[in-house]
Amino acid sequence: MSENFFVSTVRDIVFRFVKLRNPHLETMPMDYLYHLDINVGNTRDTSELQHRFGDVKVICVGGTGSRMRQLALYLRDVLSVQESGDPVDLCERGQRYAMYKVGPVLCVSHGVGSSTFSVVLHELLKLVKYARCQEPVIIRIGTCGGLGVPPGTVVVTKNAFNGLLRNEHEIAILGKRVVRPAVFSEDVIRDVIAFGVDANDGFQTISANTMGTDCFYEGQGRTDGAICEYTEKDKMEFLQKCHDLGIRNIEMEASMFASVTQKVGVMAGDVCVTLIDRLKGDQVTITMDQKHEFEQRPFLVVGRYIKKLLQQ
Amino acid sequence: MSENFFVSTVRDIVFRFVKLRNPHLETMPMDYLYHLDINVGNTRDTSELQHRFGDVKVICVGGTGSRMRQLALYLRDVLSVQESGDPVDLCERGQRYAMYKVGPVLCVSHGVGSSTFSVVLHELLKLVKYARCQEPVIIRIGTCGGLGVPPGTVVVTKNAFNGLLRNEHEIAILGKRVVRPAVFSEDVIRDVIAFGVDANDGFQTISANTMGTDCFYEGQGRTDGAICEYTEKDKMEFLQKCHDLGIRNIEMEASMFASVTQKVGVMAGDVCVTLIDRLKGDQVTITMDQKHEFEQRPFLVVGRYIKKLLQQ
Repeated sequence: MSENFFVSTVRDIVFRFVKLRNPHLETMPMDYLYHLDINVGNTRDTSELQHRFGDVKVICVGGTGSRMRQLALYLRDVLSVQESGDPVDLCERGQRYAMYKVGPVLCVSHGVGSSTFSVVLHELLKLVKYARCQEPVIIRIGTCGGLGVPPGTVVVTKNAFNGLLRNEHEIAILGKRVVRPAVFSEDVIRDVIAFGVDANDGFQTISANTMGTDCFYEGQGRTDGAICEYTEKDKMEFLQKCHDLGIRNIEMEASMFASVTQKVGVMAGDVCVTLIDRLKGDQVTITMDQKHEFEQRPFLVVGRYIKKLLQQ
Repeated sequence: MSENFFVSTVRDIVFRFVKLRNPHLETMPMDYLYHLDINVGNTRDTSELQHRFGDVKVICVGGTGSRMRQLALYLRDVLSVQESGDPVDLCERGQRYAMYKVGPVLCVSHGVGSSTFSVVLHELLKLVKYARCQEPVIIRIGTCGGLGVPPGTVVVTKNAFNGLLRNEHEIAILGKRVVRPAVFSEDVIRDVIAFGVDANDGFQTISANTMGTDCFYEGQGRTDGAICEYTEKDKMEFLQKCHDLGIRNIEMEASMFASVTQKVGVMAGDVCVTLIDRLKGDQVTITMDQKHEFEQRPFLVVGRYIKKLLQQ
């Protein structure tokens, strides 16, 4: 038993399989990734999952199922994956999230905000563990509000701040506050910028800090929600404070995403395009056509990064 | 101007239109409910929205679009609404949430957890304000974990606790913690129990406290997530503490939902069916058939309640 443990530990290190921070998983005979509707009938023999998902090197996650489907089709071209027909949603039966596989890339939807993303992130991390994926990278592709940058700017997150303007993520565990750091992998940030950007893109891709909040309206200092108990001046002071911290975009996932992936030691990055400049207003006023064009920009950047990553 | 203000205020009180807690909305010439993709071209003349949505008395919200579609079909029968064909998703273009209208009832999906639900809740509250709905009631219909009750029990939430085991909701606003009470409308709880329950149901419907957390795994004391740094004993002590507080079900929305609706004075209720008993385990082990049967139970209860409400 201890010899087996030794052998499997050495193998994990050599092949750089994902090791999670949960000793209980080693004692569970079976596991059910409920929200993905993926059953792990026998955790001691996951050969079927290894067969289906073991080649996965990159997991792209994003808000909507339709955008993840578009991304899957886009990556087919970029990566020259020989597949035709409609991408198959591997989680359709679960009815909560959509998952498409394009060669060694998964494209998975996570909904809006940290609470929903957290659920799917835990299950995806268990999936890559059971499937024995080697050093997978998780990349979030999203839309967001900008701060002092022109709409359409692509931001690759450095430090993730929460709504309290702290570079950390706070979570209630067993009724107590637990605070964890929220920083993305330096390697991923560097490589996304190095491989993803083309001088002729016609838009800017920058690395900067990101604020991830739990609320789109009051949490991000908007004055156009159903509740607002502060003035326009309070709001502008807050946004200026964010700007002073090097925050250039605001979304709803970054601090949770950074803290969970950092905790388990899985490389991750957050690449979002800004749809508005919050220093100039709260409402999204770009046209639907502009929005669709902007949404393609992280595809371009991340597509080039993944292509290079898979060639290494 | 002040006379108009007086007249409209009196009208708001007499007809019991929804008044939100945001004075800025009164100064906005237009509004765009971005995630619902509903445009309010002129906030001074919302007659088109009043025409489309002004009759709405109840908004049912729930996790998945497919369940809300099923609910819409179910309510057609219960309320004898003369409609045929597929229900139309009124928010399809927004690609984030699904909305179906069945007579005076809206059925809207909100995804998993408070962050995504908060977004759609703010926009729904603005929608009923602009559409001049009279005293609408918002009912969440969900699935959840149970605590010391048999799987399949329907729980109507009384007090909502957050993950810190406090009967409140905490939100970061302008970088500071803001704490708000999280209690549902007594009238709604009483009426859902009085009108919704039938002695021959074959399952139990109770009113009890609910814990709403931001994390399905660590936040709810599960030991089967990607991260777990506590023991089985720590977990059981926590769950017992929840039980001692009168908590009989655990989900991911209650405290945010209660606090926002309480703040703006809109009546609301949370009616969820338990899929497991967390005192007996973490994994959902019921069959898909059982799950579908359980998911119908809140439909039954809420369907009877709505029918009675509309007759009053």
